Order: sequence, then C-alpha cells, then structure tokens
Amino acid sequence: MSAAAKCFAARGIHQTSMQEICDTAAISAGALYRYFESKEAIIVALADEERAGNAELIAHLAAADDIVDGLCEALPEIIAVLGNEQYGRLAVEIGAEATRNPVIADVFGRNESELRGALVEALERGQKRGTVDPALDVQATVFLIQALFDGIPGRSIFAEDVPPRQVAETLERFLRKALRGA
Amino acid sequence: MSAAAKCFAARGIHQTSMQEICDTAAISAGALYRYFESKEAIIVALADEERAGNAELIAHLAAADDIVDGLCEALPEIIAVLGNEQYGRLAVEIGAEATRNPVIADVFGRNESELRGALVEALERGQKRGTVDPALDVQATVFLIQALFDGIPGRSIFAEDVPPRQVAETLERFLRKALRGA
Repeated sequence: MSAAAKCFAARGIHQTSMQEICDTAAISAGALYRYFESKEAIIVALADEERAGNAELIAHLAAADDIVDGLCEALPEIIAVLGNEQYGRLAVEIGAEATRNPVIADVFGRNESELRGALVEALERGQKRGTVDPALDVQATVFLIQALFDGIPGRSIFAEDVPPRQVAETLERFLRKALRGA
Repeated sequence: MSAAAKCFAARGIHQTSMQEICDTAAISAGALYRYFESKEAIIVALADEERAGNAELIAHLAAADDIVDGLCEALPEIIAVLGNEQYGRLAVEIGAEATRNPVIADVFGRNESELRGALVEALERGQKRGTVDPALDVQATVFLIQALFDGIPGRSIFAEDVPPRQVAETLERFLRKALRGA
C-alpha cells in the first residue's frame, strides 16, 4: 500500500501499472495480486487507512469537554498531515479519480460523511453547553472546515513558504474567533 | 475551449482525446488544430480565462476602501463560481494534472501568485488603514483563504445540501470576525 501510494502520488493513478507497484515494493506480481486484485482495491484499502485516522480524531472530539479547545489541540497534527507533500499529491489524485469512479467516491464519501457527522454533533453539543456561538450555522461551518482541510494539501504542494506551524496558529486564532460566542 | 472544458470535467483530461473535443464542439479536427496544437494548449488557454476572472476580482479589491467589505461583497459570486459542478470537476482535474505537468503548474501558479499578491497587498493596506487586525499574520491568512477557495469546488461536487448562499453568509461572518481587529 505504501509503494502504491508513492507511485500514485508521483506519477498519477492512471499512469501507474500494477507492475510498477510490484517493482517499487520489491515484491512479485503474485504476491501483490494475493492481496489486491486491482489498483481500485488498493485505493479502497487506502480509504480504510484514512478512516482509521479519522476515527482517532472523532474519538478525540467526542471526548473533549470543549469542542473548540479539542479541535484546536488537534490542529497542529491535522495541518502537518495535510501539508505532507506525498499525502497532498495522493489526495489530489484520489479526488480526481473519485469524480469518475463510483466505488472510490463511495468509500471516501463514507469517510467524509462520518467526519462531517462527528463535527456537526460536536459543534451542536458545544452550542448546548454554551462553548460555541448559538447563532452559528453548524452545517455551513462544517462545510467550510472540511473545504479548508481539502484545500490545504494542494496549496501546500505549490508551497509558498508559509510554515505549517504558522498556518496552524493562524487557523487556531480564526476558529476561536469564529466558533466562540460574541 | 468550452467543449474541451466539458469533456475534461466529465471524463478526465487523460481520458479525453482531441477527436472527442472536436465531436463535442461539432468542428473538424483541422479547425481545432488551427487554434490548439494539443490538449495542453487548451488547458493553458483555460488558465488565461481564469486569469481574466481573477483580474476583475483583483481590481475590485484594489478599488475597495475597506478590504473586508470588498472581499465580503465579492463572496456570493466567488462561492457561486467555485460551487458550479462543471467548474469543480475541471478544477480537480487540472489540479491533478498540474502536479505532474510543469507547463500547467506554471500558468496556474502564475494566476495563484497574482491573486495571492493582491490579497496580501489588500490586507496589508487594511492593516495600515486600521480596518484589518494589525496582529493578523497576513501570509498565513492568505494561505488559508486560498486553501479554502481551492477546497470548495471538490466539496460542492459531493454536495451535502448546504446551499451556496448559506456558505457565503457563514463565510462572510467568519471573515469579518477573523480579519477585523478586536
């Protein structure tokens, strides 16, 4: 999976053959096909890996007494992951693939929708507890947070010398201002 | 160009042939090749079209007495364009292509860097005039605004029933809170 991710990120999904994945992983075609019958099966496995990462974030948010603090604590790691160049190239590739391949759209769609549900729930809980602005449009806010997270990988590839730490700190300031009440 | 954009968005850049573009545009191959020698040349022309759109926004921001008001006035149209499904699919395709094709990376990189420069200049002007928080990290703020704009197209494709107007209104609230001083 790691060899496939490397190839997809470097050359694109369509331009990568199963044989190139074998060569990069230094395994035989037989060994690769024992686990994955196609490139699509590998991408589905990569989606499961992403899902496991999301599950950690979701558990962290669910356990946080204050969602704004909880989200802000997680930001440096989120930004570091999203800003990783290979991750970014892979995300852009898979995003393009998902627009045409319904299986891939489904598995990543499921991940997105789980994360969206967790964010919506956490912000609504915050509104009830008084730590989140009660006037906040929760659906639109989560749309914007996810759009921002989607956009960071591509932006980081064509990087403009804004260090991840600076991005995380500025985003934390914004989220605290945006999500807290007046 | 419009036929090519349609094909690229629907089937992907690599999966579209020059012949399919001719068929969609209902023109002969000779007519197409008179203007564009390759798919790459068409993408470069699409970048020039984007550049013209950006130039309007840049002029609007430069003319605004208050950058925060100026940006917020432009938001409904920006969100509407970014949320258009064909635009989104095309943006995702071109983004993936740009990670591997240096000519395409260059022309879109130039557009991005012009827009970035204009946003940085406008925010710094706002800081001098006292309409923008002087403590704001302008580089990181512009990085986040551009990442958000990059992320909206993909997010809108797999749309989650958040109407563009609602997204624009919530983003306006956030930008006003984030960019203004205390």
